[in-house]
Amino acid sequence: MSKLCYFKGKIGDIDSFQLPLNDLAVLRGYGIFDYLRTYNGKPFLLDNHIDRFFYSADLLGLNVIEDRTKIKQVVASLLKKSGLKDAGFRLVLTGGSSPDAFSFSDPHFFILIEPLPSYDELIWENGVKLMSHNYLRCLPEVKSINYVEAIRLQPQRLKAKAFDILYTYNANVLECTRSNFFLFHGDTLVTPQNNVLIGRTRNLILELADNLFKIEERDISIEELESCSEVFLSGTTKKVLPVRCIDELSIADGNRGVNTLSLQKRFNKYVASL
Amino acid sequence: MSKLCYFKGKIGDIDSFQLPLNDLAVLRGYGIFDYLRTYNGKPFLLDNHIDRFFYSADLLGLNVIEDRTKIKQVVASLLKKSGLKDAGFRLVLTGGSSPDAFSFSDPHFFILIEPLPSYDELIWENGVKLMSHNYLRCLPEVKSINYVEAIRLQPQRLKAKAFDILYTYNANVLECTRSNFFLFHGDTLVTPQNNVLIGRTRNLILELADNLFKIEERDISIEELESCSEVFLSGTTKKVLPVRCIDELSIADGNRGVNTLSLQKRFNKYVASL
Repeated sequence: MSKLCYFKGKIGDIDSFQLPLNDLAVLRGYGIFDYLRTYNGKPFLLDNHIDRFFYSADLLGLNVIEDRTKIKQVVASLLKKSGLKDAGFRLVLTGGSSPDAFSFSDPHFFILIEPLPSYDELIWENGVKLMSHNYLRCLPEVKSINYVEAIRLQPQRLKAKAFDILYTYNANVLECTRSNFFLFHGDTLVTPQNNVLIGRTRNLILELADNLFKIEERDISIEELESCSEVFLSGTTKKVLPVRCIDELSIADGNRGVNTLSLQKRFNKYVASL
Repeated sequence: MSKLCYFKGKIGDIDSFQLPLNDLAVLRGYGIFDYLRTYNGKPFLLDNHIDRFFYSADLLGLNVIEDRTKIKQVVASLLKKSGLKDAGFRLVLTGGSSPDAFSFSDPHFFILIEPLPSYDELIWENGVKLMSHNYLRCLPEVKSINYVEAIRLQPQRLKAKAFDILYTYNANVLECTRSNFFLFHGDTLVTPQNNVLIGRTRNLILELADNLFKIEERDISIEELESCSEVFLSGTTKKVLPVRCIDELSIADGNRGVNTLSLQKRFNKYVASL
């Protein structure tokens, strides 16, 4: 199925739009994006994602011409025209055409609508394996398009039969390539606050967990992985995803923990109610 | 003047070619490049640049369909058709169209011919100011397209009235955004070897300096800037460029050093003889 796209005021097939070769995304990897999805045909956390999109753009000095209302209208139009019930939306803002392959002029903005990725439903029951890798993203709080390290490591990830790569840095656990990291020490829920992208789903989970668990937003040392009782990931398409092992380390005997299950139920109930 | 470009076997105006929106350079900043120039109408260090282009591509798992001979032919054709006597060439290889915004398929390869940047000739006599910034590039030995930090900092660089940004990391001096860093302690020439892109001009300068100075390829501590006698940058368009100050620190009273001048003469003689 071909994808629909919004670009320069028009909606059409993605193949009907292109970027000039001198766009700063192409020549210098300069751009930001955001990604959101629908539940029950309704865009999920749309305002939150638009907030972060504008935040990322601002930190990279890029100006978004389209305002919040326009972006919401485009998202609704794309969903309607696609015929999809549920879908993902990728908002992308690039540095735009550059006269000298370095300075930027007017950013290019487009929105893609994509089918949601199809994961085996069993991963939410059985949990996944992670492969750790020492790496700190540049400007981690900005959702820039720079995923060079994540993509470069895919052959290693496949070889390790891991679901995703867990970034660690300076003896701390940070985040996965496209999801946030949580662990439980008993009934205390811990997630990093520094040197990570602040996920929209991450924040929702902290809200949903607020009266269930003690919450700590702080650095997590790699050593803590040995003593923690449960680990899970959060993300737009990962939802609340249990982790059964990290490299050779088995978490909680490889079984989904009761607190993770409890959060999964609360999360699923929340999105079903939308 | 519009730029010429080689893409998919054809040479034409850059505006006649485009990239699909789902190219991994656009969605994930995934790509590599190289940049070279001519002197006296002849491509300079062409084989060296092609070597590094293939090296960078290999480290990112990208395949270049065009071979060395073809690349050389295209460079020659672009120069001839452009009517330029001297020019710069930008070889770019992107991750190509991605079915899922993450995995890559067939890379896109293109070559741009560009007019050389025009600097005030006085910078080679008076030297330039640098602004330091703590930053380690991801995969520094790979000439990836990721220049997010360099471009993001341009407003700060302009405010500081600096010519370029000098990356420092873990108390060491590394490189500038697009050039290598050298310093002299008396007649000893020092340049970093680790955590930097190994410049083609850098390597040539080390060859040209071989029987003139004692050479050390090693880490340079930030503290050494206080005691060194001369500093210069090297690069394809920077050649041998004296540095007169770094932030508020004046180097050698702000004057071009005799050893830097000696290397400039040797370098200029070398390129004039091509």
